[in-house]
Amino acid sequence: MITLYELAGADPALRFSPYCWRVRMALAHKGLEATTIPWRFHEKARLPGAPANTRVPILVDGSKVVAESQAIAFHLESRYANGPSLFGGPGGEAHARFILAWADNILIPAMAPIVAPAVLPLLHPDDRAYFRASREARFGTTLEDLAAKSSGRLAGFRDVLTPLRKTLSQQPFLGGDEPSYADYGVFGAFQWASCVGAPELLAADDALVGWRETMLDLFDGLAGQAVTAKEVQS
Amino acid sequence: MITLYELAGADPALRFSPYCWRVRMALAHKGLEATTIPWRFHEKARLPGAPANTRVPILVDGSKVVAESQAIAFHLESRYANGPSLFGGPGGEAHARFILAWADNILIPAMAPIVAPAVLPLLHPDDRAYFRASREARFGTTLEDLAAKSSGRLAGFRDVLTPLRKTLSQQPFLGGDEPSYADYGVFGAFQWASCVGAPELLAADDALVGWRETMLDLFDGLAGQAVTAKEVQS
Repeated sequence: MITLYELAGADPALRFSPYCWRVRMALAHKGLEATTIPWRFHEKARLPGAPANTRVPILVDGSKVVAESQAIAFHLESRYANGPSLFGGPGGEAHARFILAWADNILIPAMAPIVAPAVLPLLHPDDRAYFRASREARFGTTLEDLAAKSSGRLAGFRDVLTPLRKTLSQQPFLGGDEPSYADYGVFGAFQWASCVGAPELLAADDALVGWRETMLDLFDGLAGQAVTAKEVQS
Repeated sequence: MITLYELAGADPALRFSPYCWRVRMALAHKGLEATTIPWRFHEKARLPGAPANTRVPILVDGSKVVAESQAIAFHLESRYANGPSLFGGPGGEAHARFILAWADNILIPAMAPIVAPAVLPLLHPDDRAYFRASREARFGTTLEDLAAKSSGRLAGFRDVLTPLRKTLSQQPFLGGDEPSYADYGVFGAFQWASCVGAPELLAADDALVGWRETMLDLFDGLAGQAVTAKEVQS
């Protein structure tokens, strides 16, 4: 019996956290079912393991509470070792840590100024003041200013993707012939942007468009069928 | 019988190419002996497989000629499958491609403006005009201008290392508990800088200093005992 706490918008069906999407994809990769529980930034006291745990994703697997997406992935890999591997062995695990560190420290920070403005109106009203204040402090400017400048950031953002593009010109997935948790680690960021209706990040002729499409189609379209800002607002 | 063609300076003992150092380390990892042959940029006709092959490293292994460091690493991994693995299995191989793409497309280009000015005076006289012209075209400025500005580039360069630093805060090597070809792929760049006597790239308290030291000590100090600009000039 697995439960996953995920960040949600005002509409509880809207799940957009890049880190939570990693876990969703990892669970599907392992063929595991989970109950997902929507959570908002202001509900810290509701989290399993609170007050030590203050953020999602949090996975509750039987009596075990695991926080943080990478720790959850390693938990799933060892606990469900008989399922399809998320990492492709010890070498795959070790090298994946670099790809995840790149995604966390380079990719997501480069994407965040483009994505964050789209997040604000989708949040639960009680989350908005926190979100605005924390993000505006991080970026040193207003979300409205970021939104106005987002198209000017796209070229620089696309340059950041060079190592990804070069790798996926050699093999269909970061994991090789099959997707691995490294793919989910990177894809989670693109899914975040898609779910909140951020400006399109990739040029139409970017080779990464094909990889992103494939990721959206995995597991019977798990990510491709996600509720997005469009459904919520219509 | 393995032969490795390596870029050399005016002094044939000075071997500093980051791509050649990857191969040196990979050969040592596999426990393989090789004859290394110094080569200069102007000696294109001397390369095995010329005129198709125009650059080093080139490995000649029996009747097989393999060009390009990554191809050489994959060749060694499959040809000498009984030796210690360079990648730690298929997942390790797949994920290593991303780390190498990062090293080739982000790390080395970020390091090059700091390192290239130190290379010029060490080259064979017949290589210098080519090197100056090609690098000044690439950087859009003179090598002397790059040298004058290199200390101003260090902070930005060190930021580029964040994913490396984060990964190596979790495990001793990119390969996990043991070094892998991913470590050699990244270390080759640092060895390039050291061999030519470029300005120190890391702050004294950078956690990466320890990793670099360990890499220098591997295989009885193979990299640490390399001939550097200092020995050549004294």
